[in-house]
Amino acid sequence: MSQKLHAVISARLFTDQKCFGPGVAELLNRVEEHGSLRSAAKSMEMAYSKAWTIVKNAESCLDVKLIESSTGGKNGGGARLTDKARQILSAYESYRKKLIAFSDSIFNEEFADFL
Amino acid sequence: MSQKLHAVISARLFTDQKCFGPGVAELLNRVEEHGSLRSAAKSMEMAYSKAWTIVKNAESCLDVKLIESSTGGKNGGGARLTDKARQILSAYESYRKKLIAFSDSIFNEEFADFL
Repeated sequence: MSQKLHAVISARLFTDQKCFGPGVAELLNRVEEHGSLRSAAKSMEMAYSKAWTIVKNAESCLDVKLIESSTGGKNGGGARLTDKARQILSAYESYRKKLIAFSDSIFNEEFADFL
Repeated sequence: MSQKLHAVISARLFTDQKCFGPGVAELLNRVEEHGSLRSAAKSMEMAYSKAWTIVKNAESCLDVKLIESSTGGKNGGGARLTDKARQILSAYESYRKKLIAFSDSIFNEEFADFL
């Protein structure tokens, strides 16, 4: 094997349905970067309607508003993250990093027979 | 929301390609239960050829044999897990349980604003 055995972990947040995961996180980060949901979707080669559905589903599931319109300014209308969106992104990233650090701390012992 | 926000974690093992994850683990557990790869695949509504490919890929990636033929006996030929397969299943389950327990221990604090 050309690369050492290692774990890849994914964490998703659910209520009775999926609320939040790597895909929503990436989309929100790109809204922040591009200043609009349409540009964010385009940068991920995702249909705008799909991006809109993903955001609305996460908002409904978490019961918070994640994106707000930013009207006016030199670029005209756009979208930006709400404070709650920044909070969930920050919490998700912190949680994900702690999980990975924990995994790293036990992996070699758990899989010693396969390394 | 009808159910409290919670995390669902998945862990997969990689080298330079995917080696092992929930799907392989379930297939191997069903080989153990059913005594043949064909019956195991059928019980998961999976084509035998796909099951075979999944096992061969995991064997190649981990560089161990996971399934051996069990010929003869009252049920004729079949398949059973090797000791190495039992070891990886056991290690994977132990690792997965520890990850989930760790996640449970930090989740409420990390996502306090969304609970």
